[in-house]
Amino acid sequence: MIAERLQALRNYMASKNLDAFIIPSTDPHQSEYVADYWKLREYFSGFTGSAGTLIVTQNIAGLWTDSRYFLQFEDECKHTEVQLCKQSIPHAPEHVAWLCDLLNENAVIGVDYRQFSKSQIDYILSHTTQKQIQLQNEPHFAKDIWIDRPELPNFAIDVHPLEFSGETTASKLAKVQAAIEKHQADYYLFSALDEIAWLFNIRSRDVDYTPLVTAYALVGKEQSFLFCNTQRFSESSIAAFKQLNITITEYDAIATLLPGLSRQQKIITDAASLNYACFEAVEGQFMFQNSLVKELKAIKNAVEIEGAKNCMRKDGVALTKFFIWLEQELEKRTISEYEIGRKLDSFRQQQEYYTGESFAAIVGYKGNGAIIHYTAPEVNSSMVHKEGILLIDSGAQYKDGTTDITRTIWLGGIPSTKIKTAYTGVLKGYIELEQLQFPQGTTGAQIDAFARVHLWKNGLNFPHGTGHGIGSFGMVHEPAQGFAIGPTTVRGTTPHLANQLTTIEPGCYVPHQFGIRTENIVLSKVVNETDFGTFLGFEALTLCYIDTQLLAVEMLTASEIGWINQYHKLVVEKLSPFLNTEENKWLQQKCKAI
Amino acid sequence: MIAERLQALRNYMASKNLDAFIIPSTDPHQSEYVADYWKLREYFSGFTGSAGTLIVTQNIAGLWTDSRYFLQFEDECKHTEVQLCKQSIPHAPEHVAWLCDLLNENAVIGVDYRQFSKSQIDYILSHTTQKQIQLQNEPHFAKDIWIDRPELPNFAIDVHPLEFSGETTASKLAKVQAAIEKHQADYYLFSALDEIAWLFNIRSRDVDYTPLVTAYALVGKEQSFLFCNTQRFSESSIAAFKQLNITITEYDAIATLLPGLSRQQKIITDAASLNYACFEAVEGQFMFQNSLVKELKAIKNAVEIEGAKNCMRKDGVALTKFFIWLEQELEKRTISEYEIGRKLDSFRQQQEYYTGESFAAIVGYKGNGAIIHYTAPEVNSSMVHKEGILLIDSGAQYKDGTTDITRTIWLGGIPSTKIKTAYTGVLKGYIELEQLQFPQGTTGAQIDAFARVHLWKNGLNFPHGTGHGIGSFGMVHEPAQGFAIGPTTVRGTTPHLANQLTTIEPGCYVPHQFGIRTENIVLSKVVNETDFGTFLGFEALTLCYIDTQLLAVEMLTASEIGWINQYHKLVVEKLSPFLNTEENKWLQQKCKAI
Repeated sequence: MIAERLQALRNYMASKNLDAFIIPSTDPHQSEYVADYWKLREYFSGFTGSAGTLIVTQNIAGLWTDSRYFLQFEDECKHTEVQLCKQSIPHAPEHVAWLCDLLNENAVIGVDYRQFSKSQIDYILSHTTQKQIQLQNEPHFAKDIWIDRPELPNFAIDVHPLEFSGETTASKLAKVQAAIEKHQADYYLFSALDEIAWLFNIRSRDVDYTPLVTAYALVGKEQSFLFCNTQRFSESSIAAFKQLNITITEYDAIATLLPGLSRQQKIITDAASLNYACFEAVEGQFMFQNSLVKELKAIKNAVEIEGAKNCMRKDGVALTKFFIWLEQELEKRTISEYEIGRKLDSFRQQQEYYTGESFAAIVGYKGNGAIIHYTAPEVNSSMVHKEGILLIDSGAQYKDGTTDITRTIWLGGIPSTKIKTAYTGVLKGYIELEQLQFPQGTTGAQIDAFARVHLWKNGLNFPHGTGHGIGSFGMVHEPAQGFAIGPTTVRGTTPHLANQLTTIEPGCYVPHQFGIRTENIVLSKVVNETDFGTFLGFEALTLCYIDTQLLAVEMLTASEIGWINQYHKLVVEKLSPFLNTEENKWLQQKCKAI
Repeated sequence: MIAERLQALRNYMASKNLDAFIIPSTDPHQSEYVADYWKLREYFSGFTGSAGTLIVTQNIAGLWTDSRYFLQFEDECKHTEVQLCKQSIPHAPEHVAWLCDLLNENAVIGVDYRQFSKSQIDYILSHTTQKQIQLQNEPHFAKDIWIDRPELPNFAIDVHPLEFSGETTASKLAKVQAAIEKHQADYYLFSALDEIAWLFNIRSRDVDYTPLVTAYALVGKEQSFLFCNTQRFSESSIAAFKQLNITITEYDAIATLLPGLSRQQKIITDAASLNYACFEAVEGQFMFQNSLVKELKAIKNAVEIEGAKNCMRKDGVALTKFFIWLEQELEKRTISEYEIGRKLDSFRQQQEYYTGESFAAIVGYKGNGAIIHYTAPEVNSSMVHKEGILLIDSGAQYKDGTTDITRTIWLGGIPSTKIKTAYTGVLKGYIELEQLQFPQGTTGAQIDAFARVHLWKNGLNFPHGTGHGIGSFGMVHEPAQGFAIGPTTVRGTTPHLANQLTTIEPGCYVPHQFGIRTENIVLSKVVNETDFGTFLGFEALTLCYIDTQLLAVEMLTASEIGWINQYHKLVVEKLSPFLNTEENKWLQQKCKAI
């Protein structure tokens, strides 16, 4: 099947004199999760991972992805000609230099400009110039190949009410309009879907796991445009938007409106999210800046923080009930990883404002836990027994917030020293970073290593970043702050500020043996102000017991033991009002002081 | 005087229709310390700091430098029109965007291309293009202004013998030639003076503090050229170079030889050190790469490491004798900071292979210690009494190595809690980073913060990087590895590898009150090899007591106390054979276990 699709693509390439084709994993909005319509890379390669780029020439089909996906790739693409090309840094466009080396002078590369940001095309052009390699825009390349391609989503759009958003669209728009004034520009153009959802307080379910709306937005000093199919809105919300001088216009109208702007008009936009087709369509002048909305949105307001805390409590209740079920059920039978994932979701569904999972839950038993972005298949996933180690990374979308939590638990038998050393090193790293006090403005790359130091001491490490921002009923991986190993990544170079929500999630993976990860969401807060500046610290919001059976207690300092006992006290205190007597008894046992 | 010079420059600018002039602090080799001939920025501004860029327009004279130099600037430039422009990141070209904002479209900026690297001009051009601002090469702008400009240095050149270098020029050249073959190039062009000194095993005294030779080098597959005035070499060394197919050619001949290369020839060079005048002179094709010699030189061989250890022992002996002298002399009289610096140097002069200081010693009493790059003036420097705090940062060039050490000592009275907290936080940070085990290839920005974390906990910090590489009878600040706060700096992004020498030097500064810094040189070594990779650790090579009077012992963990006692045991053990009985008694007292 993949062979036929690649052959059809190669025939197309030959007919168009294209020497190579680059198919990334994204959509016109640089989304992480995309609507089925945009799953071109999956269609042509079979690889379903959320990060990866396919490059096709007449001789080669290479899939570039990073170490988180190597095992998944081998599994999904083993019967195809697609080769794994190993990226050393996640999301780094390492394939560009490789492709330029491979191609002859004056070669032509096909791309769909909509799938690439302005920054990405600039990066490619900086590599292609020397050999005079050309890019050719091919927006219709899949038209006659992917016959049964799904439609673009067209679900009803909900207004995200003030009780969850904490700020009106009018107030948010005013901030954008002030920036337009300040920079003496005429418009601010937004194309990142999470920014548009935040700015207009709208939500829908266009893509899996993320309650976003496929749209563009052009904010003017007085008049604004939201490009999104009109029939998706209720009449009352169209009227409400009209009150704010916001016109709802069809999604495709962006292609005709942009070229209509006069040459004199200045448009602020973010080159990291604007797609190159939009860039090329505009006659006016762009002023490229980091998106103001991205920055505003990363700082949570009091309502969003309250919502996040509620969600953590709901997640904690669901997880407690789930873990009780799992323990009891494993006494009676073995259970598939897939069933475990579905059952966990069923407990979350009982919680208020639940709308769905925030990503595909990872339920990895023993060696499967070492596959960092593992998804248990619906059929023939591993059977979990009453022994060994189980990693569960899951999250939910609630109308008042988004969650993401990982726990690794021991199901029975005697854990090896190797497992306990790794598990304890991971938890010590989590505590080290969570307890850090650091100057406001410190970047992720500067402090990421605090979560690694106890692993390093034992010759261990993990091949992914230590954490990411998280949205408020938005994207589970929200830009821009985080903790990343690469000092050149966005998460590595973005300053941490107060009132941001970020995950801390160190891990340790031994292929075919086990995977360990412990993840909480933390809130950044001002903890000190001195002549040397403002200092921040973190408060853990996630509420779920941490399995103490796997701890090598002799590796812990008194202060680390204090942290664990204090955290468990908080978990019991916050969750117990929502649990019955038996559940409370179980939780207290799991949370008893060590 | 500065006013007259600036006026003359402005007259020149007017005659040439220049709207601005950029005068950096460097020479055609991107040197940190430059020969007097190249001290143009000092000549036109009066500012003598080692980092800073002067920008002159008809209305403004602005000196861009970072926080290490703010107090020094205020002192040196207070009677001039020169304004301080504060850089937030050391060495970052923040003035470029500022200048482009200031100037009108089509403005012309004068520069001497020799003073800018290819990378720097590219950076400037990336900012000037939008407003069509032009750069104009002005190599002779100072000719009729700076009448008594010093000559370029012309001292005799010494061969650096195998007993100190540990590797022959033939062996080093072979590695460069292998790289030329590998990249199918014809030449490797070097212009960084420390790289040339290392590659050809030559030393001289062209600039203060650094035993380098003003030269360019062009290495070919068989024939190589060293551009450096012929009369500086002995006949025997010219003959020895001839045996290696190395031709000594006059320094200025670079300007005629480069244009003579054919268009077909490929030259590998480092855009970060190649000056733009050389870049423009070449007809052939450049291949820009990080300099191979910079990478090779940063890994010390066994002879260089042995030399470094000898130098640390010699420095330790000199410092011990000096501190004894200081303590005894302060019983009798007060002593100026300047005299203290000279006296310290006199103790080092008694050590074998001493050739000079490796930088201008910093002797900062009380508030002067807070001026990070303070130099005590020869006349009217502060008088040091038998009380309070004194910071001394100094180093030497020995033929077998280069040293750099900082100690902060207490001279009498009762230290405040504030001082003790800061001092203890600094030492805890030093220990934290020195004791770290980390994967080979970890960059400086990833682990710099380990030296800060104990200061951060107390609301303290320091506004400079935590350490730098150091040469072997070479530059005291040697690229490229180090520990830097900025994730985009060279020291922040360079991987640490085994057998490198690097300083660890956290500090804490309270203006007008005190400065604290503790600095050792450490050697990186492989400490573990596992399935997760190769792990490095550091070994402290510097040997000098650390003043325990300033420690808040209650802030120290048992393991930190263990480190201090173990280090002091080592200091006594290594230095005692070179001290007399009385000196030994004194040192044992300073090093007694806490």
